[in-house]
Amino acid sequence: MIKFKNKLEKNSQEIDRFLDTYLPSGNGLNSKLFEAMRYSSISGGKKIRAYLVLESGRFISAVNNKTLSKSKYNELIAVGSAIEAIHSYSLIHDDLPAMDNSPIRRGKAANHIKFDHHTAILAGDGLLSWAFQIIGDRNFISSSEKRSEICFILAKAIGPKGMVGGQQADMDYAKHKSIDLGQIEWIQNHKTGALISCCSHVASVLLNASDEQKSNLINYANHIGLAFQIADDLLDLVGNEFSMGKPIRQDIKNETPNFVTILGKEKAIKKALEESSKAINLIQKFKQESESLVSLAKYTVNRNK
Amino acid sequence: MIKFKNKLEKNSQEIDRFLDTYLPSGNGLNSKLFEAMRYSSISGGKKIRAYLVLESGRFISAVNNKTLSKSKYNELIAVGSAIEAIHSYSLIHDDLPAMDNSPIRRGKAANHIKFDHHTAILAGDGLLSWAFQIIGDRNFISSSEKRSEICFILAKAIGPKGMVGGQQADMDYAKHKSIDLGQIEWIQNHKTGALISCCSHVASVLLNASDEQKSNLINYANHIGLAFQIADDLLDLVGNEFSMGKPIRQDIKNETPNFVTILGKEKAIKKALEESSKAINLIQKFKQESESLVSLAKYTVNRNK
Repeated sequence: MIKFKNKLEKNSQEIDRFLDTYLPSGNGLNSKLFEAMRYSSISGGKKIRAYLVLESGRFISAVNNKTLSKSKYNELIAVGSAIEAIHSYSLIHDDLPAMDNSPIRRGKAANHIKFDHHTAILAGDGLLSWAFQIIGDRNFISSSEKRSEICFILAKAIGPKGMVGGQQADMDYAKHKSIDLGQIEWIQNHKTGALISCCSHVASVLLNASDEQKSNLINYANHIGLAFQIADDLLDLVGNEFSMGKPIRQDIKNETPNFVTILGKEKAIKKALEESSKAINLIQKFKQESESLVSLAKYTVNRNK
Repeated sequence: MIKFKNKLEKNSQEIDRFLDTYLPSGNGLNSKLFEAMRYSSISGGKKIRAYLVLESGRFISAVNNKTLSKSKYNELIAVGSAIEAIHSYSLIHDDLPAMDNSPIRRGKAANHIKFDHHTAILAGDGLLSWAFQIIGDRNFISSSEKRSEICFILAKAIGPKGMVGGQQADMDYAKHKSIDLGQIEWIQNHKTGALISCCSHVASVLLNASDEQKSNLINYANHIGLAFQIADDLLDLVGNEFSMGKPIRQDIKNETPNFVTILGKEKAIKKALEESSKAINLIQKFKQESESLVSLAKYTVNRNK
C-alpha cells in the first residue's frame, strides 16, 4: 500500500503541475475567477480519477506489449487533468447552499465560502468549459479523431443522463425515506460512477484498446466506482473529519438514506469488498498483471488506512 | 425587415425542432432535469446566434460560388442548436439569486422560479455538457477535424477568458460607479461578444472559409455583438417589459453603469449605429451580397421595431 500511495502522490503532483501551468492566471477584471478555479482544483484531493486514466492507459500498453511512449503519457496527463477539473467543478456546485450547503471541502473552506456565491457558480462553469478546451486542443492530443471521440464520451458521461442527472436525482429523491437499494445504486452509478468509468473509457480510446479490453476496463471502473461510494458512506459513519477533509455524519444528521443506512454496516462492508473483488477479477482476466489497478481496487475500500 | 423576420422565425423553428428531438426526455429519477433543460431552451428567444451560424455558413458558400449542401446545412443547424443550448445555460445561471436575481426571462418565470435553485444550477450544467456532446457527435458533424476544432473554439469562447470571465467581471465591477467606457466594453465583449463572434467563427470552420473571409466575418460579428449590447442597454431605458420578456429599467434601478448611463442616450444611439455600419461595411467588402447578414446588422439596433 505504501508503494501505491507513493505512485498516487506522484501522479497527483503531475496533475497539479499541469493545472498550474495551463489554468488561466494573471490580473484583469476576471482575475477573481481565475483564482477561484485554481483554489478548488490545484493541490486538493487525491486525483484518483486522473490516476485511473493514467494507469488504465499504462495497462493497455502493457497488455498489447507496448511501452507507453512519452507522448502518450502526456496525452493521458492532459485528459486526466481535464477530468479532474470537471470533478472539481462538480464539487464546487454540489457544495453550494442550494445543493448540499457544505462549508468545507478537501480540508478547507468550500469555494462559495472562500469567495462568494456568484464566483463559485462561475468557477464551476469555467472549469467545465476549460476542460473541453483542453480536450479539443491539438497541442495536447495529436489525433483529431481521438479529440472528438473523447469530447463526446466525456460530455455524455457528465451530462443529464450521466453525472448531472445523478446529482439531480440525489437532490430530488435522496431524502425520501422510501428510496430502495436499486434507486440508491442508480443515483450513485450516475452521480459518481459515470465520471469514474469515463476515465477507463477515454484511456482505452487514447491507447487503441480492443473492444474486449475496453469493455473489461470500463466494467472494472464501474465496480470500483460503486465500492468507492459505499466506502464513502461507511467513512461518513466511522471516519474522522480531519482525514476526510469534509464534515462527517452528514447523512445521518440529514436523514439521507445511503448504502449504509439501507444495508446496515456489515452488509455494506460486504458489498464494498465484493465490488472491489469483482474489479480485481476483471483485471486478472487479462494475461498481464497490474499492481496499480489491483491496488486501486483495494484502496477504494480501505481509504482510511 | 418583414422578410428578415420571417427568415429569423423559420430558423428559430428549425432550432426548436432540433432541441426538441435531441434534448433528453422521458421519465426517471432525473426527469425534472430534462424538463428544466427543455423549459429554458426550446421555444424561447429569437435564436439570433443560431441564425448567425446559419447565415454565416450560407454566405461563405455563396462567396466561394458553392451551393450550401443539405448535409452542410444540417451541420450548421446542429452547431447552432448547441450554441443556443449554451446561451440558454448562461441565462439560467445569470438569473440565479446569487447573480442577477432575475425572476422573469423570455416572458416567463426564470428557471429557478419555475423549478428550484438546485434544478436551475444543474439544468445550466446539463445544457453546457449536452452542447459538447452534440459537437463531439459524428452523427452531426462528419469531419473529426472540424468536431475537435469547434470543441476547442467554443470552449475557449465561453470559458474563463471568454463569456464566463465577462460575467465574473460584470458581477464584480459593474456596480462600481468609477467604471469607464473601456471597461464596460471589455466586459460586454467577453460576456456577450465572445459567444456571438464564435458563431461566425465556427461557421467559417464548417465551410472551409479562407483566413481573410474568416477574419472579416468574425469582425462583423464583433461589431454586431457590441451594437446588440448597446441596443439592449437602450431598450432597458426605453423598451417595454412585454416586448423584452424581462424586467426593464433594471440598470437604473440597480445603479449599474452601462453604455447608456456612461455615454448618455444620444451618444449611445450613435455608437450603436456606428457599430452596425462597421459590420455592414465588412460584409460589403466581399464581392457577394448578403441581405441576411446586412439585415441582421440593422436588426441588432432596431429590435423594438
